[in-house]
Amino acid sequence: MAKSLRLGIAGLGTVGVGLIKIIQDNADMLTMRTGTSISISAVSARSAGKDRGVDIAAYAWEDDPVALATRDDVDVFVELIGGDAGPALAATEAAIAAGKHVVTANKAMLALHGQALALAAEDAGVNLRFEAAVAGGIPIIKSLTEGLAGNNITRIMGVMNGTCNYILTRMETAGLSYDEVFEEANQLGYLEADPNLDVGGIDAAHKLVLLSAIAFGTQVDFDGAVLEGIGRITIEDIRAAGEMGYRIKLLGVTQMTDTGLSQTMRPCLVPQSSPLAQLDGGTNMIVVEGDSVGQVVLRGAGAGEGPTASAVIGDVMDIARGINIPVFGQPANTLKSAPAVQTAVESPFYIRLNLRDEAGAMAQVSTALADAGVSIDRMRQDGQQDATAPVLIETHPTSRQTLNAAIKAIEVTGVAIHSPVVLRIENL
Amino acid sequence: MAKSLRLGIAGLGTVGVGLIKIIQDNADMLTMRTGTSISISAVSARSAGKDRGVDIAAYAWEDDPVALATRDDVDVFVELIGGDAGPALAATEAAIAAGKHVVTANKAMLALHGQALALAAEDAGVNLRFEAAVAGGIPIIKSLTEGLAGNNITRIMGVMNGTCNYILTRMETAGLSYDEVFEEANQLGYLEADPNLDVGGIDAAHKLVLLSAIAFGTQVDFDGAVLEGIGRITIEDIRAAGEMGYRIKLLGVTQMTDTGLSQTMRPCLVPQSSPLAQLDGGTNMIVVEGDSVGQVVLRGAGAGEGPTASAVIGDVMDIARGINIPVFGQPANTLKSAPAVQTAVESPFYIRLNLRDEAGAMAQVSTALADAGVSIDRMRQDGQQDATAPVLIETHPTSRQTLNAAIKAIEVTGVAIHSPVVLRIENL
Ligand SMILES: NC(=O)c1ccc[n+]([C@@H]2O[C@H](COP(=O)([O-])OP(=O)(O)OC[C@H]3O[C@@H](n4cnc5c(N)ncnc54)[C@H](OP(=O)(O)O)[C@@H]3O)[C@@H](O)[C@H]2O)c1
Ligand SMILES: NC(=O)c1ccc[n+]([C@@H]2O[C@H](COP(=O)([O-])OP(=O)(O)OC[C@H]3O[C@@H](n4cnc5c(N)ncnc54)[C@H](OP(=O)(O)O)[C@@H]3O)[C@@H](O)[C@H]2O)c1
Repeated sequence: MAKSLRLGIAGLGTVGVGLIKIIQDNADMLTMRTGTSISISAVSARSAGKDRGVDIAAYAWEDDPVALATRDDVDVFVELIGGDAGPALAATEAAIAAGKHVVTANKAMLALHGQALALAAEDAGVNLRFEAAVAGGIPIIKSLTEGLAGNNITRIMGVMNGTCNYILTRMETAGLSYDEVFEEANQLGYLEADPNLDVGGIDAAHKLVLLSAIAFGTQVDFDGAVLEGIGRITIEDIRAAGEMGYRIKLLGVTQMTDTGLSQTMRPCLVPQSSPLAQLDGGTNMIVVEGDSVGQVVLRGAGAGEGPTASAVIGDVMDIARGINIPVFGQPANTLKSAPAVQTAVESPFYIRLNLRDEAGAMAQVSTALADAGVSIDRMRQDGQQDATAPVLIETHPTSRQTLNAAIKAIEVTGVAIHSPVVLRIENL
Repeated sequence: MAKSLRLGIAGLGTVGVGLIKIIQDNADMLTMRTGTSISISAVSARSAGKDRGVDIAAYAWEDDPVALATRDDVDVFVELIGGDAGPALAATEAAIAAGKHVVTANKAMLALHGQALALAAEDAGVNLRFEAAVAGGIPIIKSLTEGLAGNNITRIMGVMNGTCNYILTRMETAGLSYDEVFEEANQLGYLEADPNLDVGGIDAAHKLVLLSAIAFGTQVDFDGAVLEGIGRITIEDIRAAGEMGYRIKLLGVTQMTDTGLSQTMRPCLVPQSSPLAQLDGGTNMIVVEGDSVGQVVLRGAGAGEGPTASAVIGDVMDIARGINIPVFGQPANTLKSAPAVQTAVESPFYIRLNLRDEAGAMAQVSTALADAGVSIDRMRQDGQQDATAPVLIETHPTSRQTLNAAIKAIEVTGVAIHSPVVLRIENL
């Protein structure tokens, strides 16, 4: 006779409903594959009466997710509420304290409280799993913690925010300004209640720092990540990048350097021929580099009901199969705290600046760059007649530090109308 | 104190040496991540004296892999000899009978004996794992059996043979004939002792049928796979495909249809813009389609010392962590035997044929196609003066059955100098 595993699901939104559908529609398959009958004991959400398009009459209802998490008939607490604290965190903590396994899709909570929660879960001997929190349906957490676990990971890069991807692509194809597309995305309901989570790169950085912890055996360090949103990208930037052979993507890069951990999430130029450049809308891509395996690339839907629920049920099935590995791939009490640094790896940079209409302005910029040791690969200003047209510069490879010094020197001259837009060019 | 897991490694070639290097160089990391000290007790290969570039003095030597597999100080037998039967199979069977876990990279053995071995392993309660057997370093077996286990898989496609990929790419870039590149690959040592394993599509089909078993819960059925090698592809085919916007790849496709399991491994035309078309040399790519997750794509090195050993050590680490799931993702005694069919899914086809220099030859071809119900999308013959130049046809979507009837009708007319080359066009 099959064993049984009983779930308590808190949060019946996009992901929660997706999970319920998978469980209702595939009971036999899940039992066949896990040797365990997976059932739902109870659910929780804000409004009990709401029609959610799935039949939840057979499940007990709890108004309070903490009460749900600690029920006797719940073996696994599935947290699909969201938010970095509040009821999601309270219920997760309560579940662990009550000896329940936890599966969550909540990157915000883990990016801020992952270390404490992992310690608690491992102390209690329960699973805390979060495949759905990073890149939706792509099995990246499993690949890193298990499949590629024999590698020293050297670098991970990824495009992991569908909304930013949508905005940048739409600006390019429709020739619209950032503000126009932002408004459009808002109307379409693509934006979070706090849109800065998406366009500020915060949501994507939440995901990146979870990958860092696994890859490098370090404590989750969201504060150490360097963030830059897409809000300053203009249609000129996108066009200029295109003419230079690049596309602009919100790209995350994490790597361990000699001096510490470098985690960056910011818009970058990537070659049009790169697989990263060819991502549309909600498709995510993650590139993992390991010392034995070389480069492995995973691509798939980064969000949405089905893909995200696919990741959640995968975690549930692992628990049903009795798999219990450390939350971040090695015991949480062995994760090291690494100093946050910016990588010293040199790369070319893209610079856009608008100059005051005064004689010698361009010469002052050139001099400032040269004095700081930044050499120019190509430079152009459209409409030679119009001295206020933006100046676009691609540098030869240099370090971010050197470039920052050059930018400061340009600002000191006073010839730039606004602080220059600087984007790294990642040739991958 | 850490538990311990002791390996016996049979086969010290490319993969075996790669595995030893990982274990020797990363002992602490492996222990940290698995809570288990992973060590090597004994090794076996043909010649004991050979310098293999790694120090194996500390390990016991066995001439006979069967003796190695059954040693008391071996917990996991790692089979890296190769070959679908012979010592690899004998030692694997002996290991299972002796209650040892087995990790293997041997797709040939599993494609032919996978069902029997899985039954034996599950009866004995031991693991039989084979991540390295399919697409080298790409964690595709783990993704299918675990990460995406909550999905009903609808289709899997993949480019999984580096040698074929190399030959086709090299023909294109260097403008060389198949025979010339084949000879070149032979000189470079890229070919197996029996080259037909590679260029006949057999090796790639061995991998595909293992994926089918997991995806569809069916018994491994190599005999049911439809194979076609790349030996008939000419430089004209490659050029014509290029001009039509396609590239030729040895593509595997497996899907469950209403009437049975369709497994095909044959050269196909894929759009130049498809990620599959952009693969070079030894890079493999697998596209998985699931009902919840949608499309997930994995790319990485399909062979080589590091990537393949990365997959082997991943399996070993899973065993060290106490993970034990069914060999093909559900108990082997529940795997169904499905009739082998060819998919009825329609697609466009590419046809190349050379006509006899006689009046009305082209008209007879057109008539034969039309009578069979195959409609022509585009057709060309280079050098209108030269009636012996090949005729290249792209059809509108049709079924393979309909197309085969049309080809037979063309052959009956006697106007074709050779049996036409027919390649499916997969628009993905
Ligand atoms: N959507 C995606 O594609 C996706 C992808 C990856 C990860 N995630 C993560 O998955 C989680 C859930 O996302 P979602 O898109 O499903 O969110 P959602 O559609 O907004 O649903 C949130 C659910 O939580 C419930 N809820 C809110 N406050 C609650 C409380 N105090 N007690 C009990 N229930 C409460 C809501 O109840 P009512 O329905 O009654 O209002 C709603 O059912 C988030 O952490 C998100 O970051 C989502
Ligand atoms: N190479 C790859 O990139 C790759 C990728 C994926 C999967 N695989 C699979 O991995 C397996 C090993 O491949 P490989 O490339 O490492 O092969 P390999 O380099 O040819 O090595 C084979 C090894 O097996 C040993 N051997 C042969 N017969 C033996 C016997 N009767 N008893 C004991 N040892 C014997 C050989 O001994 P000697 O050295 O003394 O001759 C040699 O060390 C194969 O199943 C292959 O399909 C390989």
